[in-house]
Amino acid sequence: MKKLVLLRHGESIWNKENRFTGWTDVDLTPTGQEEAKSAGQLLRESGFTFDVAYTSVLKRAIRTLWITLDQMDQMWVPINLSWRLNERHYGALQGLNKAETAAHYGEKQVLLWRRGYDIQPPTLTIDDKRYPGFDVRYSNMSKQDIPLTESLKDTVTRFLPYWIQTIAPQVSAGQQAIIVAHGNSLRALIKYLDNISDQDILNYNIPTGIPLVYELDDNLKPLRNYYLGNLSEIEKAMSDVANQAKANA
Amino acid sequence: MKKLVLLRHGESIWNKENRFTGWTDVDLTPTGQEEAKSAGQLLRESGFTFDVAYTSVLKRAIRTLWITLDQMDQMWVPINLSWRLNERHYGALQGLNKAETAAHYGEKQVLLWRRGYDIQPPTLTIDDKRYPGFDVRYSNMSKQDIPLTESLKDTVTRFLPYWIQTIAPQVSAGQQAIIVAHGNSLRALIKYLDNISDQDILNYNIPTGIPLVYELDDNLKPLRNYYLGNLSEIEKAMSDVANQAKANA
Repeated sequence: MKKLVLLRHGESIWNKENRFTGWTDVDLTPTGQEEAKSAGQLLRESGFTFDVAYTSVLKRAIRTLWITLDQMDQMWVPINLSWRLNERHYGALQGLNKAETAAHYGEKQVLLWRRGYDIQPPTLTIDDKRYPGFDVRYSNMSKQDIPLTESLKDTVTRFLPYWIQTIAPQVSAGQQAIIVAHGNSLRALIKYLDNISDQDILNYNIPTGIPLVYELDDNLKPLRNYYLGNLSEIEKAMSDVANQAKANA
Repeated sequence: MKKLVLLRHGESIWNKENRFTGWTDVDLTPTGQEEAKSAGQLLRESGFTFDVAYTSVLKRAIRTLWITLDQMDQMWVPINLSWRLNERHYGALQGLNKAETAAHYGEKQVLLWRRGYDIQPPTLTIDDKRYPGFDVRYSNMSKQDIPLTESLKDTVTRFLPYWIQTIAPQVSAGQQAIIVAHGNSLRALIKYLDNISDQDILNYNIPTGIPLVYELDDNLKPLRNYYLGNLSEIEKAMSDVANQAKANA
């Protein structure tokens, strides 16, 4: 039986300001840092040790992982970073306040962007200062891989090769792994592991800062999964994230 | 012309308590964290960007690197960890206060251990709780690689393969690299790069928390090297570390 731990980063500055973040590299708030600490303490108390860690190239995920490993006294665990674990790219919406977006594009259109599995927000142009090609961390990406916008479907499509080619072989080989990522890149993995439909994954909300443990068979099919920690706190975190999703929907 | 940055971690808890540390995984003091912050600020102000980072598996070095990258807003730089960058292993002296050691073994013997390039401190036994084989981070090492003690010569011998096989090819390929490590693993590299004699390297003291920049030709021969930052602060740091070395000698 293999174990895999998923962790969604906690509150970021733009979560708090209710802006579309996507690939914008905003940091955790102090609350987000506390969430990461709690996650690390839970993992330590539950006796987890990791051989390898995976995260995005965005600092809200990297800092969550650093804080988690620090709390576990396992700072020496090797960390692999990939843009394929980044949050969904929100195209030209990135940086906009969600209320401003509704005022500008109309409530109905915003609902479509959020509720359609394969619907892309407006694209960035490559002269936009938000274009990822201007950021040195993406300088080794082939131009056709650099997103100008993404539907959730696009996020799933660019995430899966990293799972299949990089993470899954390590987990199969018995390496105990933690993946610290974002709401939509984790949805991509969960959709694949649990074979969730395009429609149902849109309503699947992962609470922040609570380790989600998957037990997998030798073919990496899920046997069961569970959140670590106190049940009432988990329920609160899940209803917070569901309410947030409703408010944003 | 290739550039390579070396950085020695700042004050650790046992530096302060004047204990032989070696592979013991003690953390930075708040002063040590401030040293790392200053290093990161200096590198940022000097316009450095890194493609790759190397450090040991000891948290005083890892934390120094994390703080440095955070200050530079380059948390996404991939980090490679290796026990070959660890501090010299001090064998059975690890954990002993330097004054206690002198009282127990005699001043003359301590001087030999510190001043002899190829003289090893007393070895650990493999049932000693300090034996690295008990630590999960070293569980993939072959038993003959796990040190029971090390002379500076031994440290050089186990460090060099990592430079030659892993770091040097990346630097040759034009990757801008930072190495955050320890007094003796950095001595090993500098001895090799600058072709310093066995005797002279023992008197070579690297200040903590001050980035040391090497400019190298295409064959990785040093063209020049310099410390980043304010000259009077560098001189103070160098005389501090030289005085510490004298006090300990």
